[in-house]
Amino acid sequence: MTLLDEDRLFPVEPSVRALARSLYESVRTLPIISPHGHTDPRWFAENDPFPDPAQLFVTPDHYVFRMLHSQGIPLEALGVPRADGGVTEGDPRKIWRLFAESYHLFRGTPSRIWIDHALQDVFGVTKHLSAQTADLIYDQIADCLAQDAYRPRALFERFGIEAISTTESAIDDLCWHKMIRESGWSGKVVTAYRPDAVVDPDFPEFASNVARMGELAGEDATTWSGYLAAHRNRRAFFKSYGATSTDHGHPTAKTADLSADAAALLFDKCLMGTCSPEEAETFRGQMLTEMARMSLDDGLVMQIHPGAHRNHSADIFVKFGRDKGYDIPTRTDYVSALKPLLDAVGNAPGLTIILFTLDETSYARELAPLAGVYPALKLGPPWWFHDSYEGIRRFREMTTETAGFYNTVGFNDDTRAFCSIPARHDVARRVDCGYLATLVATGRMLADDAFEVAQDLSYRLAKQAYKL
Amino acid sequence: MTLLDEDRLFPVEPSVRALARSLYESVRTLPIISPHGHTDPRWFAENDPFPDPAQLFVTPDHYVFRMLHSQGIPLEALGVPRADGGVTEGDPRKIWRLFAESYHLFRGTPSRIWIDHALQDVFGVTKHLSAQTADLIYDQIADCLAQDAYRPRALFERFGIEAISTTESAIDDLCWHKMIRESGWSGKVVTAYRPDAVVDPDFPEFASNVARMGELAGEDATTWSGYLAAHRNRRAFFKSYGATSTDHGHPTAKTADLSADAAALLFDKCLMGTCSPEEAETFRGQMLTEMARMSLDDGLVMQIHPGAHRNHSADIFVKFGRDKGYDIPTRTDYVSALKPLLDAVGNAPGLTIILFTLDETSYARELAPLAGVYPALKLGPPWWFHDSYEGIRRFREMTTETAGFYNTVGFNDDTRAFCSIPARHDVARRVDCGYLATLVATGRMLADDAFEVAQDLSYRLAKQAYKL
Amino acid sequence: MTLLDEDRLFPVEPSVRALARSLYESVRTLPIISPHGHTDPRWFAENDPFPDPAQLFVTPDHYVFRMLHSQGIPLEALGVPRADGGVTEGDPRKIWRLFAESYHLFRGTPSRIWIDHALQDVFGVTKHLSAQTADLIYDQIADCLAQDAYRPRALFERFGIEAISTTESAIDDLCWHKMIRESGWSGKVVTAYRPDAVVDPDFPEFASNVARMGELAGEDATTWSGYLAAHRNRRAFFKSYGATSTDHGHPTAKTADLSADAAALLFDKCLMGTCSPEEAETFRGQMLTEMARMSLDDGLVMQIHPGAHRNHSADIFVKFGRDKGYDIPTRTDYVSALKPLLDAVGNAPGLTIILFTLDETSYARELAPLAGVYPALKLGPPWWFHDSYEGIRRFREMTTETAGFYNTVGFNDDTRAFCSIPARHDVARRVDCGYLATLVATGRMLADDAFEVAQDLSYRLAKQAYKL
Repeated sequence: MTLLDEDRLFPVEPSVRALARSLYESVRTLPIISPHGHTDPRWFAENDPFPDPAQLFVTPDHYVFRMLHSQGIPLEALGVPRADGGVTEGDPRKIWRLFAESYHLFRGTPSRIWIDHALQDVFGVTKHLSAQTADLIYDQIADCLAQDAYRPRALFERFGIEAISTTESAIDDLCWHKMIRESGWSGKVVTAYRPDAVVDPDFPEFASNVARMGELAGEDATTWSGYLAAHRNRRAFFKSYGATSTDHGHPTAKTADLSADAAALLFDKCLMGTCSPEEAETFRGQMLTEMARMSLDDGLVMQIHPGAHRNHSADIFVKFGRDKGYDIPTRTDYVSALKPLLDAVGNAPGLTIILFTLDETSYARELAPLAGVYPALKLGPPWWFHDSYEGIRRFREMTTETAGFYNTVGFNDDTRAFCSIPARHDVARRVDCGYLATLVATGRMLADDAFEVAQDLSYRLAKQAYKL
Repeated sequence: MTLLDEDRLFPVEPSVRALARSLYESVRTLPIISPHGHTDPRWFAENDPFPDPAQLFVTPDHYVFRMLHSQGIPLEALGVPRADGGVTEGDPRKIWRLFAESYHLFRGTPSRIWIDHALQDVFGVTKHLSAQTADLIYDQIADCLAQDAYRPRALFERFGIEAISTTESAIDDLCWHKMIRESGWSGKVVTAYRPDAVVDPDFPEFASNVARMGELAGEDATTWSGYLAAHRNRRAFFKSYGATSTDHGHPTAKTADLSADAAALLFDKCLMGTCSPEEAETFRGQMLTEMARMSLDDGLVMQIHPGAHRNHSADIFVKFGRDKGYDIPTRTDYVSALKPLLDAVGNAPGLTIILFTLDETSYARELAPLAGVYPALKLGPPWWFHDSYEGIRRFREMTTETAGFYNTVGFNDDTRAFCSIPARHDVARRVDCGYLATLVATGRMLADDAFEVAQDLSYRLAKQAYKL
Repeated sequence: MTLLDEDRLFPVEPSVRALARSLYESVRTLPIISPHGHTDPRWFAENDPFPDPAQLFVTPDHYVFRMLHSQGIPLEALGVPRADGGVTEGDPRKIWRLFAESYHLFRGTPSRIWIDHALQDVFGVTKHLSAQTADLIYDQIADCLAQDAYRPRALFERFGIEAISTTESAIDDLCWHKMIRESGWSGKVVTAYRPDAVVDPDFPEFASNVARMGELAGEDATTWSGYLAAHRNRRAFFKSYGATSTDHGHPTAKTADLSADAAALLFDKCLMGTCSPEEAETFRGQMLTEMARMSLDDGLVMQIHPGAHRNHSADIFVKFGRDKGYDIPTRTDYVSALKPLLDAVGNAPGLTIILFTLDETSYARELAPLAGVYPALKLGPPWWFHDSYEGIRRFREMTTETAGFYNTVGFNDDTRAFCSIPARHDVARRVDCGYLATLVATGRMLADDAFEVAQDLSYRLAKQAYKL
């Protein structure tokens, strides 16, 4: 018995399905390029076993605990750590049972497909997860986790990962990346430069983060020029650990291009904590443009992830802190927002800026038209809530006609859940192949071209855009 | 001859269609739970015959007369009453003929399906409506209406309605509900508490409405605390007539959570008619939060229907008044708008707030992410213009992956057109079964689960969410 | 060998495809009504041969050069003329080769279908365009262009164009239209009145444009009443050259309805160049209402094309000027924006205002509800980036249920690329027939009705709405 339909996510009409299957077979076993995500480099550095099934599938996966929470299960009961030190469930088996008996909540969601994929392909599970099978499956996973073949590096290799990028704060010392490098292990794990903590005046401890960056860089980061120099220094340090990209998670896509004097003045206010919310927004926007200018020099690919209202519930934020499933997408404008940056560097050769969105209405209206004309712009794959069958389908349907395929960059998984990586790439490959098969079946693409594009979307474009 | 295709609204691929049909057969005859709508309780109280075909199908149905009007037919010619007492067509047969000869305008619209369904299933019509068949069909319907089997209570029973909720103003005396109760008839017709007239400072006669509420409740509603007490009293009165829910039709989803003092001050301004438009909006928002708090106490389920620009045409409003097809949806934000209310009560156990929208862009971007994490939030079915094949399909495609099925509440018909109730529930069941069949066919759901979810969507979720 | 699939753009399920094919066959050879576009009347006046393949397919087609540019090809290399007189590529064969070797970029785009259609049907090309076939195909086209059968008038007739409307500025002298008329050629080429240059205070040389209009009209256009009289005069002049419509390309859909005094005052400020950006916007909005009032008198159909952020890149605008692929859609509101105009004339009999959008989110939310009730409003076909398979499909799916078919106006091509006209109408007919076949297959339309609607969408509605 298998948990998964072999033909899942393919179009239903038999001849189109057959073509989708052929296309998929031609890319199914291609190596995984994972150019953007949030796996923990410590896993690969220490290569310790993952602790237990709950720690692997439930407690750290915001897709999972937010759904359980939405139906009234307290986060405490799922072992989600409390920021205020309050007690949470510590028995992984109890957490797992709660998850298993609520598994019907995930019907029709991508989490269900990712988890079934991991259960079947990674752990050999053959029964559907439910209250009845909870303990059996728990034990089966726990047994696996005790074996060397299930340690992080072994799984990395088994998953066919050719390269993976983690994401670290600009003030991270990259100790785990250093440890990976020094271990002599051949797995390609690189970092990415995420400067939110030192470019966002609203970030907790902004000023001391900037001071810390100055120390790490050996620059006086309390002046505008020293601060920029410190960024350049840190970017070079990240590059020395393989980084090929930067990543920017801003509330909006707003950019700015102030004069050096105005920028320096604004920086002073931000550092002193006297800037208004609008000035903080302008400073973040100014830093996107500065980062783009530095990318012109050092070649790092720039990723912009705007549009989440973070930590929407005041109550949950106080009790549990950040990243607890309470980040909610908002309407996001790109057309006015990106103009200052694009006027500065949008037509500069050699620059790559990859745009993401949580607002699907921007695909056809703003993002495809922008990426379809500005040489610097590329479209990232469907992000977060949209990394799904419907999300990928809508992305292709709403961007291809205006931006084509070659202004997109293949797939990235953006995940913290290690075992979901093969599942997510598999979903993307299946949905893209289904889309290509539909193009062929409706006379919008030649079959030969479809096979070539399938390779591009599954492997080549990500490798090329991210320089991996 | 039948007017309707037996396999209507199912997917076209034969094997998927077969599964959709099986799913549909498993729910087709389930009782109807109609937890939210605008049928007139007087029908069930007096149980008089409906007057004529035009009064049943044309004159009160805004879907119908707005389409005819859009093609240049004056509302007067359709018998729509004029607010200013002007003359309108009084001959129902003439109105019916106008409708029949314009029936091609409804090609591809849900009205066409609802009306054909009612003509065929309720009245046994076997010919397509047109200028040629107008009189024949008019006579056939008129003959039926003269029979006891076509009186409101008989139709209610024949339609298989297990429970229906009407919607009454907070200052309604519920006399028709009283009459229904005293009649001893077993049909379950309950009311719902709609306080727009006493929470919206822009509502005509707001201050005197509030005064009237005070009288009915035996409270001094001119003070903030008396006003709140009057609401509590009226809610209890509505509950005594079976109400399980409240309903709020606001221009936006804005909520507020002022201090008691600030709220009291604002209430005074609103009552004196000196509040600004922004203050009126804040007061409406404050009252959503107050209503949510009262729901925590009395258990009434809260429905929020925001986002219509009411009475868009000044001209038509003067001549014909409210609800004349000139309500136009606008962009609606939920993320910022609901935050004050959610910070106040969004994680409180036992509260249910059902969100509706006329802005489909909010489904995937805002509503599914919100309902997919806040325990208090559920998603209402596609509303108004979106209560249709494409509307229901888009709703499922854009909400399921993030909110699942169990953060939605089944279907409600929201109709004033009594004979459209079975038709609308039938459409929803067909489209949902088609969606489920597609999930199964694409490996996104197990077939057994699909049969269970079909029951949930057609019956159980509405019953449970609305406590009916 | 053919470049195009005979069944392209039809649904994939065999029985639905068969019906789509039948529907399409019933409209395939209907004459083309092209009621709105940007072909050059000079072509038909002088009837000179088109110069070369690059001038026909690459250099003037913003869809084509924007895509090539997005992948790093400088506009200069494509022969796009520089506003600043800088050098650009002058060898059409080199431009063509660049295009041919980059043809894979157009996979999945409408440009690919339009160009393949023109290559095959107009020029008899049987090989796919690529670096290998570039010269061969170049020569084949160039040979054709040297023949009389490929001159503009011959192609016009061969394309089966029954009527075409070009678009001219209000201060154009219509010399080419005069020349066409005096030539005695029977092809119906009419003009349309586009007053942007004289109603938009932000338009380059606004004041002198207004002065020029005054001269042409024999009115003192420096006064508000003289300015309006000049418009009336120019509209009559355009009507004398067959115009049946006006066209308005505004940044937003904002309208206004000021008192005559306030409008006169605002006009003075605009003419003196002292108006603020908001006042300029109000003036444009006032002029939409004035134009609508004039349409009530002279019967010209009004087209509103709002929502493009024109010339987004400062850099490209300086180097190359307007219309260089850097126009980007923005969010567009219609509900509040159109209210002043609609309150003034929205229910007036005999007025037709055709609304277009670049913001697909407005289809179901705003445009269909507005057009589904206001007698004056009709929906234009999918515009610009949305004139495509997916664009047309989404338009029908998101507008039909609320506005029906008879509040839409068939198809227009809006093109500057002459050879794409038959291709674009063919795409629209195919996608519409596919949509109709799907409606029939899902029990949402009778087959007989579908054949009638197919005629309406392909021919009758455009002819009727535009009075051609």
